[in-house]
Amino acid sequence: MGKVTCDMAISVDGFVAGPNQGPDAPFGEGVGESLHRWMFEEPEANAAELKQLNDAGAFIMGRNMFGPGRGEWDLDWTGWWGPEPPYHRAVFVLTHHERATLEMAGGTTFHFVTGGIIEALERAQAAAGDQTVAIAGGAATVNQFLTAGLVDELRLHIAPVLLGRGERLFEGVDRTDLTQVGVRYTGLVTHLRYVITYDGDTERRRKADQADTSRPPGSTPG
Amino acid sequence: MGKVTCDMAISVDGFVAGPNQGPDAPFGEGVGESLHRWMFEEPEANAAELKQLNDAGAFIMGRNMFGPGRGEWDLDWTGWWGPEPPYHRAVFVLTHHERATLEMAGGTTFHFVTGGIIEALERAQAAAGDQTVAIAGGAATVNQFLTAGLVDELRLHIAPVLLGRGERLFEGVDRTDLTQVGVRYTGLVTHLRYVITYDGDTERRRKADQADTSRPPGSTPG
Repeated sequence: MGKVTCDMAISVDGFVAGPNQGPDAPFGEGVGESLHRWMFEEPEANAAELKQLNDAGAFIMGRNMFGPGRGEWDLDWTGWWGPEPPYHRAVFVLTHHERATLEMAGGTTFHFVTGGIIEALERAQAAAGDQTVAIAGGAATVNQFLTAGLVDELRLHIAPVLLGRGERLFEGVDRTDLTQVGVRYTGLVTHLRYVITYDGDTERRRKADQADTSRPPGSTPG
Repeated sequence: MGKVTCDMAISVDGFVAGPNQGPDAPFGEGVGESLHRWMFEEPEANAAELKQLNDAGAFIMGRNMFGPGRGEWDLDWTGWWGPEPPYHRAVFVLTHHERATLEMAGGTTFHFVTGGIIEALERAQAAAGDQTVAIAGGAATVNQFLTAGLVDELRLHIAPVLLGRGERLFEGVDRTDLTQVGVRYTGLVTHLRYVITYDGDTERRRKADQADTSRPPGSTPG
């Protein structure tokens, strides 16, 4: 079974998006391109990390990353990414609302999972085989997987900005020891890689079971 | 006039100390040496950064960094550092309670400042001449200086741990653009250096004046 990874572009003060994400502000108010300039302005310098971002056998994301809608589905909404999303694999979207699987051009298939993070992970691992499962975001979803002890490798891409407010990575995540395995700096971003070692699979799964039954999939109304 | 710098050892989730700092837990509960292992276990690899930490013409710190006491002074308390503190320069301690200047062995002199961050900075700059003034901590003090637009260079020393709770750096600090000027990684820590450029001295000083009159020196009862 492949490892579970998570790549997050993040401000120096720990935010991965601003407040009030919506159709006109997919990363929230006051963020603009500040977290992602390295992707757009330094694509060659950051080629390795950009390739890695979408190099997984399957993806998991929260509903708020899939779109700005809440509550019942607007079936016209098929994600932020247009007809051919950049994933080219199965993507499992955590939601409280059932929706039929959505096949997009280029091999991306959105599956909508109402059973919580363990169901999403099991289905993603089945789809990925021995390849990586990537937790794509947003903050609430990543924080759930971290709390459950289910992330093997965390890759932070720190942009040189303080945002002051927004969606905070690590909110509610308890004390966790990390092992740093690399760093790379290109001018507009510092890439940090951390491995997380839990106390064996049993402990890990126990924590996951607790997390899965004690709260709904997503701290948002999605 | 020398620049104003700030060096902070910080967890990946943004804490510089745990909760409930006290005589038996100077860095707060649950922290132990997790933020500072690089200092103790890798002193040679981190020699440049360790030298830089105490390489200033004067220092400013909050009362909570000077000691665990609150309210009126216990005059027997002369800091965490024993008879010869590692500063060897003038140190300006922000407090609400007057106290006579304290001369220690090795050239460290603690001055107690009741007039707020601007008074502390002016006195520190006068003492430092053309050398750097270092804001030594803790989080509440650094956050006040950042909010006031008074820090020229921020040096974060990121330790590979999530603490989950404690004293958060950047709490209450508004959106601020940074320029990254360096990174170095030694295994137990990543050193990140950022320059902060404000909109000229007038703007900067205006913000400082606002900050100084709108709240007391320190968000704590010190």
